[in-house]
Amino acid sequence: MAEGLKVLRAVLDEDVKLETTEYDFGARRYHATGDTLTDADLAALKGHDAILLGAIGDPSVPSGVLERGFLLKLRFAFDHYVNLRPGKLFPNVASPLAGSPRIDFVVVREGTEGPYTGNGGSLRTGTPHEVATEVSVNTAYGIERVVRDAYARAQARPRKKLTLVHKNNVLVHAGHLWKSVFDRVGREFPEVTTDYLHVDAATIFFVTQPERFDVIVTDNLFGDILTDLAAAVTGGIGLAASGNINPAGEFPSMFEPVHGSAPDIAGQGKADPTATVLSVALLLDHLGHREQAARVEEAVAADLAGRTGEPRTTAEIGDALAARVSG
Amino acid sequence: MAEGLKVLRAVLDEDVKLETTEYDFGARRYHATGDTLTDADLAALKGHDAILLGAIGDPSVPSGVLERGFLLKLRFAFDHYVNLRPGKLFPNVASPLAGSPRIDFVVVREGTEGPYTGNGGSLRTGTPHEVATEVSVNTAYGIERVVRDAYARAQARPRKKLTLVHKNNVLVHAGHLWKSVFDRVGREFPEVTTDYLHVDAATIFFVTQPERFDVIVTDNLFGDILTDLAAAVTGGIGLAASGNINPAGEFPSMFEPVHGSAPDIAGQGKADPTATVLSVALLLDHLGHREQAARVEEAVAADLAGRTGEPRTTAEIGDALAARVSG
Ligand SMILES: CC(C)[C@H](C(=O)O)[C@@H](O)C(=O)O
Ligand SMILES: CC(C)[C@H](C(=O)O)[C@@H](O)C(=O)O
Repeated sequence: MAEGLKVLRAVLDEDVKLETTEYDFGARRYHATGDTLTDADLAALKGHDAILLGAIGDPSVPSGVLERGFLLKLRFAFDHYVNLRPGKLFPNVASPLAGSPRIDFVVVREGTEGPYTGNGGSLRTGTPHEVATEVSVNTAYGIERVVRDAYARAQARPRKKLTLVHKNNVLVHAGHLWKSVFDRVGREFPEVTTDYLHVDAATIFFVTQPERFDVIVTDNLFGDILTDLAAAVTGGIGLAASGNINPAGEFPSMFEPVHGSAPDIAGQGKADPTATVLSVALLLDHLGHREQAARVEEAVAADLAGRTGEPRTTAEIGDALAARVSG
Repeated sequence: MAEGLKVLRAVLDEDVKLETTEYDFGARRYHATGDTLTDADLAALKGHDAILLGAIGDPSVPSGVLERGFLLKLRFAFDHYVNLRPGKLFPNVASPLAGSPRIDFVVVREGTEGPYTGNGGSLRTGTPHEVATEVSVNTAYGIERVVRDAYARAQARPRKKLTLVHKNNVLVHAGHLWKSVFDRVGREFPEVTTDYLHVDAATIFFVTQPERFDVIVTDNLFGDILTDLAAAVTGGIGLAASGNINPAGEFPSMFEPVHGSAPDIAGQGKADPTATVLSVALLLDHLGHREQAARVEEAVAADLAGRTGEPRTTAEIGDALAARVSG
């Protein structure tokens, strides 16, 4: 987090005043107070232009508590319906894929619906007759806004290609709604080429033809799965950035590395801050500082291109990136 | 299909009497009669020991019609709760993964529950206020039987390792049920080492550390996604076999290649029958012909190992495999 802020400060022109407030969320606070994200926290956070989130989580907290009590709660409370995750293989970064294919796409994952709504329940819990359900909730309203955002992003990119990923041969109701909204909104973007893939087929293309993708729009759960796979083929979640975006700006958007908190190496100066720095680039872009966002991304690309395997500390990488963006 | 039957006939000893009946399902029949799978079809099929299914489907049939009207209908009608899909990278087969990792696992995908039950619906359909739901239905009964099958398969393999894949940090009700059944049944298999992965993390390991997997058990939808990815990293769905198994034998089990019908090359003698032949191996194994199943798999491995890139027709590959298994 310190390195992300360092690069952010370094890239901003003197006329941009940056004010930051630190909040302590995550495992330590949860153990001390039992809180993950209170109404007061939400009210305080709401006053900011954007949120940069350090990775949270610790094995001492039961699985799901911080995920649902903090991360998902915030995404839903602040209506982060665009979960933006670039999948880009930078030069000199090792991919598990043979032949280092050209990978440069962005996944627009719906962030506030689908199987993530917490609908569902359990009957006869703990007995041999238990029935547990999970309900994926999808609305025309919710799909249309994220699909339109994805078209606009495709329109703004050189290749102008948008792929819808779903599973409409099985999930017929949700799938039909996604596909019909996708087709209808597409008429507003005649320059954008479109494509549809079932989620299972999409995973095949992620490893065999990742170059076929430009912008992908998909539901919350498929997006969760595909973006981890995207991170894996582009050098690992250690480099993957993400934005939880409320495009209308009614609520602050939140930017976070996709990786976890790596408690085993916390405080040792070994963690690579690159995913946080790339999240800073997404934050800058979202707030309209396009040129600065591009400079941060270029600095990361140059830093990655120059890596020789010689170990550097977290701060050394941050310093190098800060020097590049201000230089 | 012809090559699959050729190899099946060639591998069986003279004392095993093989009777086959051909049924015409798929696109042609659907166009002629509007039927996909009638009650009479089901009654006829029920009289067999096993079903070998050729790939079905054609662009002339609307997406989903044959998938749901034939394939899923049969899986549910014949209670194929074990959807078995090996992920094995044979020597000399190109993987999109760098460095040809050792891949030899099997996915036990639940086949009769989860988001595949057809539960769900749509309200205010076609209006801007549409709400579409998909309900994942999970029962202790349904999970326990597939989990026990997976443990037994893990127990029978040299590494004896079973990984549960779910998303219990978000899908809490279904996830909790899966995890608690998994832990409870595990006490019957003290020799089996267990592991749990969220589905998003599992996709990462499929491309970065596929050698970590031995047997995987997972829900219907996650299994659908993971097995296509597994096929991709082991040389493509052109080589992927699957079994839709009713272990108790109340209904015939069905074996099918994972790939589609490739209507663009149908009848040209260009299709590679290997996935069908490997499905025959699963069929033989299921019916207790273990040694014959192993011979078919060894023949495929030898055939793949000897491939030089020289094109062969479908029948030539079938002949070569038939010669190997009888030789
Ligand atoms: C931690 C978890 C709840 C979360 C998700 O499933 O969205 C994570 O996997 C992610 O992708 O940000
Ligand atoms: C065709 C489709 C319904 C099917 C599924 O989703 O199960 C297929 O993808 C498979 O994996 O056999």
